[in-house]
Amino acid sequence: MSIFDERESNLRAYCRVYPTVFDKAFNARQIDENGKQYIDFFAGAGVLNFGHNNPKMTTAIIDYIQNQGVAHSLDMSTTIKRRFMEVFSELILQPRKLPHRMQFVGPTGTNAVEAALKLARRVTGRQSVVAFNHAFHGMTLGSLAATANSYFRGAAGVPLNHVIHYPFGAEDSRLSAETGNGAEQLDALRAQFSDSSSGLEAPAAFIVEVVQAEGGVNVADKAWLQALAQLAKDLGALLIVDDIQAGMGRTGSFFSFDDYDIEPDIVCLAKGLGGFGTPLAMNLVKPEHDDHWSPGEHTGTFRGQSLSFVAGIEALNYFRDEQLMNQVAEKSAQMREALSALAQHPAIQVRGKGMMLGIDVGDGAVAKSVVANCFENGLLLGACGTGGRVVKLLPPLTIEQDDLAQGMSIVIDAVKHALETS
Amino acid sequence: MSIFDERESNLRAYCRVYPTVFDKAFNARQIDENGKQYIDFFAGAGVLNFGHNNPKMTTAIIDYIQNQGVAHSLDMSTTIKRRFMEVFSELILQPRKLPHRMQFVGPTGTNAVEAALKLARRVTGRQSVVAFNHAFHGMTLGSLAATANSYFRGAAGVPLNHVIHYPFGAEDSRLSAETGNGAEQLDALRAQFSDSSSGLEAPAAFIVEVVQAEGGVNVADKAWLQALAQLAKDLGALLIVDDIQAGMGRTGSFFSFDDYDIEPDIVCLAKGLGGFGTPLAMNLVKPEHDDHWSPGEHTGTFRGQSLSFVAGIEALNYFRDEQLMNQVAEKSAQMREALSALAQHPAIQVRGKGMMLGIDVGDGAVAKSVVANCFENGLLLGACGTGGRVVKLLPPLTIEQDDLAQGMSIVIDAVKHALETS
Amino acid sequence: MSIFDERESNLRAYCRVYPTVFDKAFNARQIDENGKQYIDFFAGAGVLNFGHNNPKMTTAIIDYIQNQGVAHSLDMSTTIKRRFMEVFSELILQPRKLPHRMQFVGPTGTNAVEAALKLARRVTGRQSVVAFNHAFHGMTLGSLAATANSYFRGAAGVPLNHVIHYPFGAEDSRLSAETGNGAEQLDALRAQFSDSSSGLEAPAAFIVEVVQAEGGVNVADKAWLQALAQLAKDLGALLIVDDIQAGMGRTGSFFSFDDYDIEPDIVCLAKGLGGFGTPLAMNLVKPEHDDHWSPGEHTGTFRGQSLSFVAGIEALNYFRDEQLMNQVAEKSAQMREALSALAQHPAIQVRGKGMMLGIDVGDGAVAKSVVANCFENGLLLGACGTGGRVVKLLPPLTIEQDDLAQGMSIVIDAVKHALETS
Amino acid sequence: MSIFDERESNLRAYCRVYPTVFDKAFNARQIDENGKQYIDFFAGAGVLNFGHNNPKMTTAIIDYIQNQGVAHSLDMSTTIKRRFMEVFSELILQPRKLPHRMQFVGPTGTNAVEAALKLARRVTGRQSVVAFNHAFHGMTLGSLAATANSYFRGAAGVPLNHVIHYPFGAEDSRLSAETGNGAEQLDALRAQFSDSSSGLEAPAAFIVEVVQAEGGVNVADKAWLQALAQLAKDLGALLIVDDIQAGMGRTGSFFSFDDYDIEPDIVCLAKGLGGFGTPLAMNLVKPEHDDHWSPGEHTGTFRGQSLSFVAGIEALNYFRDEQLMNQVAEKSAQMREALSALAQHPAIQVRGKGMMLGIDVGDGAVAKSVVANCFENGLLLGACGTGGRVVKLLPPLTIEQDDLAQGMSIVIDAVKHALETS
Repeated sequence: MSIFDERESNLRAYCRVYPTVFDKAFNARQIDENGKQYIDFFAGAGVLNFGHNNPKMTTAIIDYIQNQGVAHSLDMSTTIKRRFMEVFSELILQPRKLPHRMQFVGPTGTNAVEAALKLARRVTGRQSVVAFNHAFHGMTLGSLAATANSYFRGAAGVPLNHVIHYPFGAEDSRLSAETGNGAEQLDALRAQFSDSSSGLEAPAAFIVEVVQAEGGVNVADKAWLQALAQLAKDLGALLIVDDIQAGMGRTGSFFSFDDYDIEPDIVCLAKGLGGFGTPLAMNLVKPEHDDHWSPGEHTGTFRGQSLSFVAGIEALNYFRDEQLMNQVAEKSAQMREALSALAQHPAIQVRGKGMMLGIDVGDGAVAKSVVANCFENGLLLGACGTGGRVVKLLPPLTIEQDDLAQGMSIVIDAVKHALETS
Repeated sequence: MSIFDERESNLRAYCRVYPTVFDKAFNARQIDENGKQYIDFFAGAGVLNFGHNNPKMTTAIIDYIQNQGVAHSLDMSTTIKRRFMEVFSELILQPRKLPHRMQFVGPTGTNAVEAALKLARRVTGRQSVVAFNHAFHGMTLGSLAATANSYFRGAAGVPLNHVIHYPFGAEDSRLSAETGNGAEQLDALRAQFSDSSSGLEAPAAFIVEVVQAEGGVNVADKAWLQALAQLAKDLGALLIVDDIQAGMGRTGSFFSFDDYDIEPDIVCLAKGLGGFGTPLAMNLVKPEHDDHWSPGEHTGTFRGQSLSFVAGIEALNYFRDEQLMNQVAEKSAQMREALSALAQHPAIQVRGKGMMLGIDVGDGAVAKSVVANCFENGLLLGACGTGGRVVKLLPPLTIEQDDLAQGMSIVIDAVKHALETS
Repeated sequence: MSIFDERESNLRAYCRVYPTVFDKAFNARQIDENGKQYIDFFAGAGVLNFGHNNPKMTTAIIDYIQNQGVAHSLDMSTTIKRRFMEVFSELILQPRKLPHRMQFVGPTGTNAVEAALKLARRVTGRQSVVAFNHAFHGMTLGSLAATANSYFRGAAGVPLNHVIHYPFGAEDSRLSAETGNGAEQLDALRAQFSDSSSGLEAPAAFIVEVVQAEGGVNVADKAWLQALAQLAKDLGALLIVDDIQAGMGRTGSFFSFDDYDIEPDIVCLAKGLGGFGTPLAMNLVKPEHDDHWSPGEHTGTFRGQSLSFVAGIEALNYFRDEQLMNQVAEKSAQMREALSALAQHPAIQVRGKGMMLGIDVGDGAVAKSVVANCFENGLLLGACGTGGRVVKLLPPLTIEQDDLAQGMSIVIDAVKHALETS
Repeated sequence: MSIFDERESNLRAYCRVYPTVFDKAFNARQIDENGKQYIDFFAGAGVLNFGHNNPKMTTAIIDYIQNQGVAHSLDMSTTIKRRFMEVFSELILQPRKLPHRMQFVGPTGTNAVEAALKLARRVTGRQSVVAFNHAFHGMTLGSLAATANSYFRGAAGVPLNHVIHYPFGAEDSRLSAETGNGAEQLDALRAQFSDSSSGLEAPAAFIVEVVQAEGGVNVADKAWLQALAQLAKDLGALLIVDDIQAGMGRTGSFFSFDDYDIEPDIVCLAKGLGGFGTPLAMNLVKPEHDDHWSPGEHTGTFRGQSLSFVAGIEALNYFRDEQLMNQVAEKSAQMREALSALAQHPAIQVRGKGMMLGIDVGDGAVAKSVVANCFENGLLLGACGTGGRVVKLLPPLTIEQDDLAQGMSIVIDAVKHALETS
């Protein structure tokens, strides 16, 4: 009996989906201890936008360690943190004329969301928050309350209050048909917030993913998201964009909302921010809101993660020019093109943005068999959405063309096979 | 204006206490960008038990990276995770005959606590949890509810429910005199839980730190903690020990409770577990409780932190023999001896265990001036406890004798100076 | 300074709307201490369906008292309670083939709602309840959570959780245009409850008024209410009809829902149930739900109000034949006819059912001036709805034709005057 | 099958304890439909302090009805309400120099408590309230949260938050021995409230019964209650005395706290206030707190209960001179004297004040058999306290000497018999 069977918690999950033991990895490939290689369309759940063991990062990290750089600093000032902030400001904030401040939090996405919700409640003096169907914002009680999936919610053990759940305004028709049209729901919501006898008080914030990743690769309709931003503004509520999985270039631009003409009050970043797979999380906060924080009110031991700063700077450097984002556009088109082979099938809907695509096969069991089939054939990917019915394609942005083509071929065959046998 | 002034959140705190920019570090020394060296009695808030840039760890990490080891794996199985688990089992669990399973969670202490509370509620079907005055368990809503400090609680923005706060049973008299005798309170609590008309329902869990670190370096009285364990057992409630700051050898043994004759249902570990300052968090859970988890109910992106596994194995190796723990005993005695110079002063109380000691100077302003004075004189340390009135001494366990002596000298002078001028 | 000015709480309200001191009353007339008579279109907020000092009731009460009948009995069995139950069963339940049991609760509407919500949560093991915009269910914390008006909610002082507020499906177009179409909302709600990743769990109950009285005299659309009943059934949730103000013949039949083809799981009754103005409250509960109660779990001192039973029997006797309900139909038509003079005005909407009619004048200040004008001219009525913009006409069902005509004339003149001067 | 069996809710309870059907009643006697007379030591759960069908009240009520007095008025001004307020002010408030205003609420004790808690939260801007073990404050969610008994709490169906439960400071030793010494607990509570790192925030209010009736006839220790009042004052919290069952002369003075040298911020009254058994509830509120109410924020249909005002005036008239209170003192002594026959028995403790006495027989099953035995022998009384182990003696204050003596004889025999056979 392996140590995993003997001593690892029953909670473990991905090791059941991928029943092998991984040893090494580079760019879009993982290698198990038997030497079998897998193409990686999972990318650490969206962390590894720049590939496993990105060479620029490994060099920088080793160099940093060899020079005895401070590895861990909480929120003390360090030279490497300064560099990270300078680069982030130069490459991301200034070009977009974003006035936001950087707030480093405990290095998990859920911690970023918790901090954002705290601040929104502080700024507005209100308690309730509006979150959306199929949203995923984290597992700790504050962010879990905003997460939609009943499987996760069911583990809370206490009521999850102070969050109002409303239909998400997806640009895709299937979702709207099934769970309500987001735009009409938003009108109804506005009407209720305008009526002092609706039972709904104006919220502290609206928290939204521009592309819902775990929720099933649902892309926000542009008009809907702009209406949402306007509603938030009219109500004096904050607009929080959770860009934890969809940010860092994943959708073809640094932020997922770059082409939406909105300016969020708070943006939550994590996952890909640390570049290498080491944790980092950060909120971007408008100064007028940030001023409501008193020093140290929301703390965390691992906020000053220098290896993540080192690798994160390398990640940010990809945004110095258009090269990577142009590649993402091309690879995205390549993926779409390959998927067109499935598009005719009535049970299938393909959705997504940039290099985050989803194949909605309409049934969780079918998607599960696709994932298993892909694993056998050397491709790692995961399922998401209600009942796990959406196969999510999330390769590193830096994936080699051949690996991308080969991976697409494997998944398309797997879907076809699943449809034929289901 | 520096990037910190311009762009970092107002929330930043330690950088205000230590107004410089750190660049390098080794063992118990940090060096700022001007080359000034500081002795470190802060140790990354308890993370760096084995020193900054521990040479065994830097070698192992660089080696791992150069060999393209998987850096990030969520809860997939990896060869390095297997090794970490095997070593942990061999050196920590088996010698103590602990049957516990290892549950890796999002790599923050707060996430470990959230997971522990979820499980306790699941196992018992109950909602309320008993936590203790001066407790610190984290910043996310679930763990924040169990945290005592009103400054942190005030940032929640929503009510913090489902936790009952009771006096901690400290072995030191000052605390008891001020906030109630823990033992008597525990008797009263037992009486109330036994009375169906008390308004208190039996709790899901008791969560306790054996040494309260942030709460003011309060060491649990052994009889009290045993009575607490018995009460939990009698009520069918789980005993959760939060060993996040006091574990990993800090108090002279791997667990802070090794000499307390209790067997917790769940032990929360983080901070020092990753060895190098990179994050890792893990709960040890008795199998009969762990079986209540369904796969993936509590997830987290950064659960599989390979660099932390690599360095963590080196950290665990310190527990292969008695050498380090013997050194801790000696250094602890050396610190106590030095502090005896202060012990006569009526305003002073020295408390603690192993190499976590606190100088309770009775007043937050005094402690603040001590910390500032130490910083000027090249020593990093922090204040904790109610109103920040306790100066906390938390050097790396591996600190050089000379550094330890010099640091003690600085802090003792600072305390004397503060007492004379206050 | 009067004792009211000197010693009555600042909370007092109706005495400010009607600034006089009332002394006597009969049928639809109240007389103040100066002998001035007022026609009563307020009817004790819907309590006095059978008029002030209904002669059959005064005779019966005096007789009961003179015979030393038990006046107060909690939930002991008494001969008068038996008679009340027999008559209620004979005249109300049996003709409708309703299997419901009678549960006497603390003699307020809010207590009935609290008991209904407790039972629905017990039966289903769920916590959340769906209530509707503009709903009024009471002032105690459990029922207040289901009440929509922010003025009342703002007095709670603690969060009001476990209730989801949704648009009411009114048959009138104005309301729908402003606060969302109930039917579409209900479809969206059904879709969300069907989606395990919506963030909404199936509720314990839907609680609804068939005619929202305090909410602005909004009559439920029949198709909507039937769809609601079906949704409740499909979800395993209870349908609770709060018939506290609209029941007891007010809308032209004993229950407001008699012509809706639905069978509620629980019906809450109070207000008019005691007949005379003395309190009584009762829930009708389907036996299969009622069986979930253990004896005495929800208690209350004043559940056995014999004077209310005595007068209540007289009230029930009005339903032995069609006479009163026929009169209600005629008087309702008479009121509608009179109001047709206002119907052309674009700012005006007339709504309602039976002898509960509302004149929505679109503006709270206008409605307030109408109420004040009416008072001056000898007519008592109140305002309701969002911002108090609906003038509510609620005369005793037994009102004399002349009083009804005179009252209608006063209110119509007042509305016309207000519209001309606003 | 009777209508009770067929149609009354399973919730019914007292009718199971007293399995007969009552028909008539006068002073301390109830008569069932078979003509059997019972001496009443239950007094409508403390409502009927002045006996069933008190002749002064029956005369006044009949007279009022025959004169067409307004029966029901919400919070309009009426001549009878004015008279009630004048008499209350003259006889109760002015002699005690109490500045309190009268706030009429929905006519149940629970409604009074809900209103008191709302106001305390409004005044202080705080949410939590301290209530005590064994407290009974009502059944609606707000007051139920402050009620201690797990049987009642278990019916809520949602978490009962925002209340901290602490041991009551009883003057009797048995209770203290079992559930903690109130005075020590109060010291510990003060210490925690003084410590910003205790996890406890200062509360909005302390709510306390001076004599806990349902909780087991526990009389507050005078020093404890004064310390409690001081603690409330020091913390800026309101002191709320729930005098619903113990007020109106029951303990030998109008208020139960008349000899405690405290001045509550709010006093809740109900039960006996309406005199005749018809409902009435009222809070006495200090003007500086009452000013925080806006008109109509806490409403209720049945606040203006004229029959209760009429009878309540007669009840208040008993306090024009010392006669009745002298009789209570004598009867109380007579009861104590009779109970001295039981005092030697080690399993028995007699507690109480005035004419509210409890025989703690230590076991709920024993108490239940006592109650059943008494019923068979023509005496009505109830059990209270944890597990129902206290037999409560609560005769009307106006009971005839012979009835009192005979009732005492029946209950003492029953207790002796139960002790012998248990």
